[in-house]
Amino acid sequence: MKHKTIGVLGGMGPWATLDFFEKILRLTPAKTDQEHLRVIIDNNPKIPDRSPAIVGTGEDPTPAMVASARTLQQAGADIIVIPCNTAHYFYERVQNAVSIPVLHIMEEVVTTAREEVPSARVLGILATAAAVSSGLYARACARKGIEVVNPDPASQQVVNRAIYAVKGGQVGPEITAGLKKVADGLVGRGAQALVLGCTELPFVLKPQDVPVPLLDSNQILARAAVRFATGVPLPTPT
Amino acid sequence: MKHKTIGVLGGMGPWATLDFFEKILRLTPAKTDQEHLRVIIDNNPKIPDRSPAIVGTGEDPTPAMVASARTLQQAGADIIVIPCNTAHYFYERVQNAVSIPVLHIMEEVVTTAREEVPSARVLGILATAAAVSSGLYARACARKGIEVVNPDPASQQVVNRAIYAVKGGQVGPEITAGLKKVADGLVGRGAQALVLGCTELPFVLKPQDVPVPLLDSNQILARAAVRFATGVPLPTPT
Repeated sequence: MKHKTIGVLGGMGPWATLDFFEKILRLTPAKTDQEHLRVIIDNNPKIPDRSPAIVGTGEDPTPAMVASARTLQQAGADIIVIPCNTAHYFYERVQNAVSIPVLHIMEEVVTTAREEVPSARVLGILATAAAVSSGLYARACARKGIEVVNPDPASQQVVNRAIYAVKGGQVGPEITAGLKKVADGLVGRGAQALVLGCTELPFVLKPQDVPVPLLDSNQILARAAVRFATGVPLPTPT
Repeated sequence: MKHKTIGVLGGMGPWATLDFFEKILRLTPAKTDQEHLRVIIDNNPKIPDRSPAIVGTGEDPTPAMVASARTLQQAGADIIVIPCNTAHYFYERVQNAVSIPVLHIMEEVVTTAREEVPSARVLGILATAAAVSSGLYARACARKGIEVVNPDPASQQVVNRAIYAVKGGQVGPEITAGLKKVADGLVGRGAQALVLGCTELPFVLKPQDVPVPLLDSNQILARAAVRFATGVPLPTPT
């Protein structure tokens, strides 16, 4: 079985891309260099911030994302992954620009939720305000008969601050404590599992910090990519 | 000042490439995604192992390295770095295949040694047996009037085992203890500073493990790359 090459449309943000790369390495069954997977990473943090673009106050990141996807395809990638949830607002235009498949992080997360926490009918979503308000998880969940609960506006500000603290390299215990409180609030409102729906958040919140299963979107995307590259079929989309 | 793009000819091995990427992020003065540097990484662990090729028992990695360098140039890299010391045996053929500069890890390490440990006239080299026997550090040091001491054959086997333990994801305290003993032996033979002359070794040995300054080749290469990309001039080669 010849391994396939993973292309990473990265840099959104760079720490999340680093975390994604590490997860790929940890998930790959390998005892030598050569048993590991080829991964081509375009870590391009110069791509304009997704959140302001979605709410109409910032530059459109799509041209830079499309250019990066084409670069990855040209460089030899067999599949593209985007370790940034909010960037999936622009997913269609990226997928339409290349002939190789682009994994969809929300679809992978929701499929995993159904497999690993089959009893969960309500997921709590921790993501950027722009990702939440544009309904990226709500729609993917609705297609599988799952409800979502989102933080109230004040709590959403706490989530956003945590995300930008990671981007700024300034995570500390008080950032984690704030996010734990938000997570507890979502559980109190019925969430039976929580989604780390922003790839910066694994630097802030760990499974042991919350009382319900924690679905790490970056880990789930990395696992899907490794499955594709090593030849284990991806879960069938429904 | 427009930042330049760093191309990483990586995967030799993948954990060293991950460590290099993390060092780039830590060394970049940035509080937002966009202040970070674009880094294109071709993590290609399928490149044949460098050590057997050098001693004549394995496939030549140069064609794959040349292809990767050209891919990085084509993708938009302004400079190439190779976070693998042993691979620098094949440096000339890679540099000759592209029109952008390829940093040379031994030159960067020796320049840094002169700057940061100016009193050191003797460096102890921790590197693969193939890198040591082919004199990669010895020649670069000799050009700057620095002597090297290398491990004796039994100790060199300990170093090689440590390197391949990292590649296999099997580092533990006994691996570190063994390498500390080798390091102490080199200091006993006159080394006034030690070179982690293999990019796997930062996973095994830390500055606090040794009684003399420890020059981490992966850290030095990352710093040189960040200097280039952010516009701070590289140290002048002499």
